[in-house]
Amino acid sequence: MPGINYEDFLDLDYEPRDSELVCTFAVEVASDMDMADAAGRVASESSNGTWAELQVEGSITDLSATACAIDGNRVTVAYPDALFEEGNMAQVLSCIAGNILGMKAVERIRLLDCEWPEPLATSFPGPQFGTGVREEIFDAGDRPITATVPKPKIGLSTGQHAQIGYEAWTGGLDLLKDDENLTDQAFNPFADRLTESLAQRDRAEDETGETKSYLVNVTADTRRMLERVDMVAEHGGEYVMVDVVTCGWSAVQRVRERCAEHGLAIHAHRAMHAAFDRVPDHGVSMRVIAQVTRLCGADQLHTGTADLGKLENEDSAGINEWLYSDLHGLNDVLPVASGGLHPGLVPELIDRLGSNLCVQAGGGVHGHPDGTHAGAKALRAAVDAAAAGEDIGAKAEAVPELATAIEKWGTETPR
Amino acid sequence: MPGINYEDFLDLDYEPRDSELVCTFAVEVASDMDMADAAGRVASESSNGTWAELQVEGSITDLSATACAIDGNRVTVAYPDALFEEGNMAQVLSCIAGNILGMKAVERIRLLDCEWPEPLATSFPGPQFGTGVREEIFDAGDRPITATVPKPKIGLSTGQHAQIGYEAWTGGLDLLKDDENLTDQAFNPFADRLTESLAQRDRAEDETGETKSYLVNVTADTRRMLERVDMVAEHGGEYVMVDVVTCGWSAVQRVRERCAEHGLAIHAHRAMHAAFDRVPDHGVSMRVIAQVTRLCGADQLHTGTADLGKLENEDSAGINEWLYSDLHGLNDVLPVASGGLHPGLVPELIDRLGSNLCVQAGGGVHGHPDGTHAGAKALRAAVDAAAAGEDIGAKAEAVPELATAIEKWGTETPR
Repeated sequence: MPGINYEDFLDLDYEPRDSELVCTFAVEVASDMDMADAAGRVASESSNGTWAELQVEGSITDLSATACAIDGNRVTVAYPDALFEEGNMAQVLSCIAGNILGMKAVERIRLLDCEWPEPLATSFPGPQFGTGVREEIFDAGDRPITATVPKPKIGLSTGQHAQIGYEAWTGGLDLLKDDENLTDQAFNPFADRLTESLAQRDRAEDETGETKSYLVNVTADTRRMLERVDMVAEHGGEYVMVDVVTCGWSAVQRVRERCAEHGLAIHAHRAMHAAFDRVPDHGVSMRVIAQVTRLCGADQLHTGTADLGKLENEDSAGINEWLYSDLHGLNDVLPVASGGLHPGLVPELIDRLGSNLCVQAGGGVHGHPDGTHAGAKALRAAVDAAAAGEDIGAKAEAVPELATAIEKWGTETPR
Repeated sequence: MPGINYEDFLDLDYEPRDSELVCTFAVEVASDMDMADAAGRVASESSNGTWAELQVEGSITDLSATACAIDGNRVTVAYPDALFEEGNMAQVLSCIAGNILGMKAVERIRLLDCEWPEPLATSFPGPQFGTGVREEIFDAGDRPITATVPKPKIGLSTGQHAQIGYEAWTGGLDLLKDDENLTDQAFNPFADRLTESLAQRDRAEDETGETKSYLVNVTADTRRMLERVDMVAEHGGEYVMVDVVTCGWSAVQRVRERCAEHGLAIHAHRAMHAAFDRVPDHGVSMRVIAQVTRLCGADQLHTGTADLGKLENEDSAGINEWLYSDLHGLNDVLPVASGGLHPGLVPELIDRLGSNLCVQAGGGVHGHPDGTHAGAKALRAAVDAAAAGEDIGAKAEAVPELATAIEKWGTETPR
């Protein structure tokens, strides 16, 4: 096979087939290389090429990727379906986001976007519920569902944690959420937290007549994670929460299978995404992480606050639109806006992102001058008002807790 | 708890306790922030702080991290042991490499290094064999063990793949290795590849009288991955290979448990590491990834070629030194040098990295003008010479395959 060279992976007249995975990269080439050469090397290294000419019998070119478009620093590569193992996200990522990110032939390279073809996409399960959680679990109508994470994010006792849940739920919020680094620690053990929180949840449901639920963080090695999923089902939970990036996709896929057996929804926390999506010209974009999360089957995913909160955001609106869009019949995903939000930011948030959301606030609820219950009332009122197209100022006149929240935080973006 | 502010997380006189996880970050602060403020925010967000003042009863300050040193742009943070769940790598990463990487308070932030305290480190299993594979599996004496990955990396039939293994093993190499994106595809199904390759392995062992083994890539969702691990054990393999970054740590930990039941070693491929370690001022360093890999229990890990190959490398020598160093009694890890190597580079490689290594070449074996068998002979001869302190030129006079390899590739670094 001495004929396989980089230029064999470049064909700017090539039209990707419907069955091919089409990826767009932003590429910054090394100084002694031109873009066409770099594009060919990207396609080569991420499919079946290597740096050396080989002495191998037979043709394997039907597995070669093709760099089929170059537009400025944007390179489009089409990957034949046969390159991929069905339903194996780790394998897909090892192709399209593996060695190529470290190639010397490029100075920087970022996987920006993927178009997922039907054969590959439908080899993954996708979400069980997606945005359907708003109706199927909560009967929330057209409003965003709401969530809060106890703060301080770590260190509360089990009793304090469950009590905060009770106050938040009875204040009007739908979901109590663990934080990303709270799993099973001595100060608040998993099993106790699950049972005590769900007991308070039951009490809050009785008092409010609304459905309430709890996003308990099951993140661990896969064995313990599955045990925790089973415990959640046993104790009558509706959801598990998973730190999808730090635990990894092979575990997420396994958890998705187990959750389907129990009918549990999955809330995906994206802690660590910024390790590879923050530097704009390198790594893997949050858009692609969102795509991967949907394919693997999480129902809810943090996608940022459209730049209103404390964290750096990519294009939340564009990502959310993708999460809602058709993907060969797979369910959609409910985006979660989170990170530095408070009631006064809600109208602008809904304006930017629409109301098919989960709105999540931690400090912006518990930091309310009158505490968690009042903070929850304020957030729920802000969400109800925004969803109904009502002015938040007018709503604040009717809901003093909201007035207090606005007085404290205004509509300023925290840093 | 209105007293928790960023400055409460900063104490430059603080001496970390032996039980604390001590992390070093490189921080580039946002323009309106000073380093001390940023350091406090890093410690806060990665332990128990948030952006808002809170109204919570009780003291939780014993779970607060402390930014305890600032040296230029280097910030050292000490994390109390009680923050972490034992043996839960995803949870640890959600603390120390989670939200903080996306904080607006910093422009860039990189987790550079960790000092792992005994309680946390020994809650992980570490490797079963580590560098011990050289003796316990191969009886390789003082020389590096050697491996090759068939090229083209993907697209060979099962028969071609196993035949290449046979040629490589009988040429003198120890290990046949799958590539990172070869798992279970129609052109080369996992089960067939495993059995046919091991059959050729048995033949090669009979012919050479040396122990040979096969790094078969079991990477998949956790369920299928465990099935594949079991199949490897059933068919008499000694190793599995895992794409540790793309499959994720929760799956790696589960695989480590299952491999221990079978006495199988784990070869860790690091595909996708460059997504978060390539940009020097952001993300997570390869050094930390190597630490995580060791704790989770892989026996062999790709750590680059000390800048001799086709991929960007961090400090391979420094990482390898860490992998060999004492870690509260956990086993060490055998570093794998891979990526664009060929026989002519081996003396310089061993000079830079020592011989307690696995030397792996793909194109540098199969691209030999006389094919894989000759390429394997050349690589083995180069490794034997370097380990014995023999001049490669003298060796090439005795081994014509090595002379041919040097004639073709010289000692140039490929790009």
